[in-house]
Amino acid sequence: MKKEFIDPWGSRELKIDQKLIKEFGLKKFEKNSLPSNHYLFERGIILAHRDFEIINNCIKNKKSFIQLTGIASSGQLHLGHKLDVDIYLLLRKLGAKSFFVVSDIDAYVSRPDSKVPSLQKAKEYAVEIIAHLLALGIPKEEIYVQSRKEQRYYEFAFELSKKITENEFKAIYGHLNLGKVAANLLQYSDILHLQLKEYFGPTPTVTGIGFEQDPHARACRDLARRLPYNFKLPSFIYFSHQAGLQEGKKMSSSEPDTAIFLNDSVPEVKRKINKAFSGGRDSAEEHKKLGGVPEKDRAFEILFYHHPNSKFVNKIYENYKSGRLLSGELKKICIDFLVDFLTKHQEKVKQNVKIANKIVFGK
Amino acid sequence: MKKEFIDPWGSRELKIDQKLIKEFGLKKFEKNSLPSNHYLFERGIILAHRDFEIINNCIKNKKSFIQLTGIASSGQLHLGHKLDVDIYLLLRKLGAKSFFVVSDIDAYVSRPDSKVPSLQKAKEYAVEIIAHLLALGIPKEEIYVQSRKEQRYYEFAFELSKKITENEFKAIYGHLNLGKVAANLLQYSDILHLQLKEYFGPTPTVTGIGFEQDPHARACRDLARRLPYNFKLPSFIYFSHQAGLQEGKKMSSSEPDTAIFLNDSVPEVKRKINKAFSGGRDSAEEHKKLGGVPEKDRAFEILFYHHPNSKFVNKIYENYKSGRLLSGELKKICIDFLVDFLTKHQEKVKQNVKIANKIVFGK
Repeated sequence: MKKEFIDPWGSRELKIDQKLIKEFGLKKFEKNSLPSNHYLFERGIILAHRDFEIINNCIKNKKSFIQLTGIASSGQLHLGHKLDVDIYLLLRKLGAKSFFVVSDIDAYVSRPDSKVPSLQKAKEYAVEIIAHLLALGIPKEEIYVQSRKEQRYYEFAFELSKKITENEFKAIYGHLNLGKVAANLLQYSDILHLQLKEYFGPTPTVTGIGFEQDPHARACRDLARRLPYNFKLPSFIYFSHQAGLQEGKKMSSSEPDTAIFLNDSVPEVKRKINKAFSGGRDSAEEHKKLGGVPEKDRAFEILFYHHPNSKFVNKIYENYKSGRLLSGELKKICIDFLVDFLTKHQEKVKQNVKIANKIVFGK
Repeated sequence: MKKEFIDPWGSRELKIDQKLIKEFGLKKFEKNSLPSNHYLFERGIILAHRDFEIINNCIKNKKSFIQLTGIASSGQLHLGHKLDVDIYLLLRKLGAKSFFVVSDIDAYVSRPDSKVPSLQKAKEYAVEIIAHLLALGIPKEEIYVQSRKEQRYYEFAFELSKKITENEFKAIYGHLNLGKVAANLLQYSDILHLQLKEYFGPTPTVTGIGFEQDPHARACRDLARRLPYNFKLPSFIYFSHQAGLQEGKKMSSSEPDTAIFLNDSVPEVKRKINKAFSGGRDSAEEHKKLGGVPEKDRAFEILFYHHPNSKFVNKIYENYKSGRLLSGELKKICIDFLVDFLTKHQEKVKQNVKIANKIVFGK
């Protein structure tokens, strides 16, 4: 059995779209020279970058650098959002001055009324999301909503509209929906404004994103080049998205059974994991004989993305692959892990609603 | 001669593009029921409107109404801008709570770098323009620049992007240049934000504009309808633009000889008026015989647009039309009027630079 073992990092590597990386001009993180031994790097969940050398240099030489990450406030958070937060906390631990934006104006203007019917509703979503962010360990001083910023931030969002053309915008986003334009002006401002002299001045910055957001990242870098402020080109690290619980589906807020939400109750978690796509065989006998397929198993994937103990995750992998661990047993381990995490987490969320309200509404 | 006399209001009427008014669904101000006997109404310089009845009703019943007018800060002010200010001061006198925006962000993002190379430069222009506005009699409390507003104003500019479609925007402005999008979001916010509950709440508002700005006015009215704030549809009054000093030219900041600038020196004024297009005949004899053509004469037009004494302007009209007043004499009268006005005005501008600086830069 030993020779069949593929270490998780290796197995993740299979998911990297090498062509994508090449086409976009990204660089892969190399297994032998990772910026940190954190499991997000070790397991290859964070797998590529643009200009992370600059940030690495800041880390090594204890120089100042900034990270900015965000979530649009348009619905419930799921495990995919937790990954954003985990990456945020990792970069924070590596020394980044860190800021987390909850994009309420963006969520309102770029999403249909059926999802976000009013700015007020977007702000109410923001309160809930921020309560989760606080519960996950982000300090309150680092969180802001777009709707409660200072004049320079907004002025800058309008200002930078001069430096991106209609054609560039269309090439990136496919259309020029006005709400999308407004939302993106704010997003550019989020990523770049911290380098203005009114904030920290030109400073290396880094943001963790999914591959599909790379065109947006490149637009930010183009803007940084064109604006008259000597900005450093923002760096980006790219993570691989966790799959949806059902085969062929992404985790999506609008399809509740595709994802574990951070608000899910214990029975919900059990139900969702038990019906999630499995890498097990048709019978226990067959499973023991052929071994499971952890690479396809959503219960394993949850442990792989979220369980901090790499030894434990490797052990599960090995046991499942070898057939010693059955699919039902793996699901049970996953459920126990999630129930333990979510129960504690939801308790903390409750304790943080008041602070979240203050961040969004000022009272 | 008397029977040939056409009163200025009548002569102005010839300039009204009736088809335009009909097509746009505007209403003409009727000579016998003008909202005020101010010369801008009497002479038909303000000649049409959308929903001014609502404002008229406010005036008559001493109900609250708001006016918002603005100038982009991208160069020197000329007599055409003075007309904007005259209309502003008139509506103010009629009881409007009045606000004058100097659009510095707009000027920067919607104009080429060759005209406005930086936001800083747009702000410097704004200082100069505001010194002129103060000198013309606008109280400092009523003037603001886009770059120094409160959070709700900016948030609102982004917010309303959701309520106007790509196709509507293209139909109005012909293209979707990103700077133009940003500039217009701010302009909509300028006109509409005063009706937000954070300002005055839903209130009748009025803005004086040229005909060519009507599509923009209609966009503002569409937005007012679509936003969830019970806004009153903004009213507009339409004025006829003064012609350029040369035949076939508009007054333009980029062609200095087409306009009298509020900064022009006495020799400049003399030179420009003396070479301005004249309605006089080829010789004094012919002029005395046939009479002049005041309708085409730029010196007369300046008096018509800017001299507050209607009796005097009518007298000049009559004397010129009849041939008693020669072209050179008319030019002399115009020059004397302008030199007197500009000399005093420029003195006041100097006294107001400090206050203007404070409005733009806060110090």
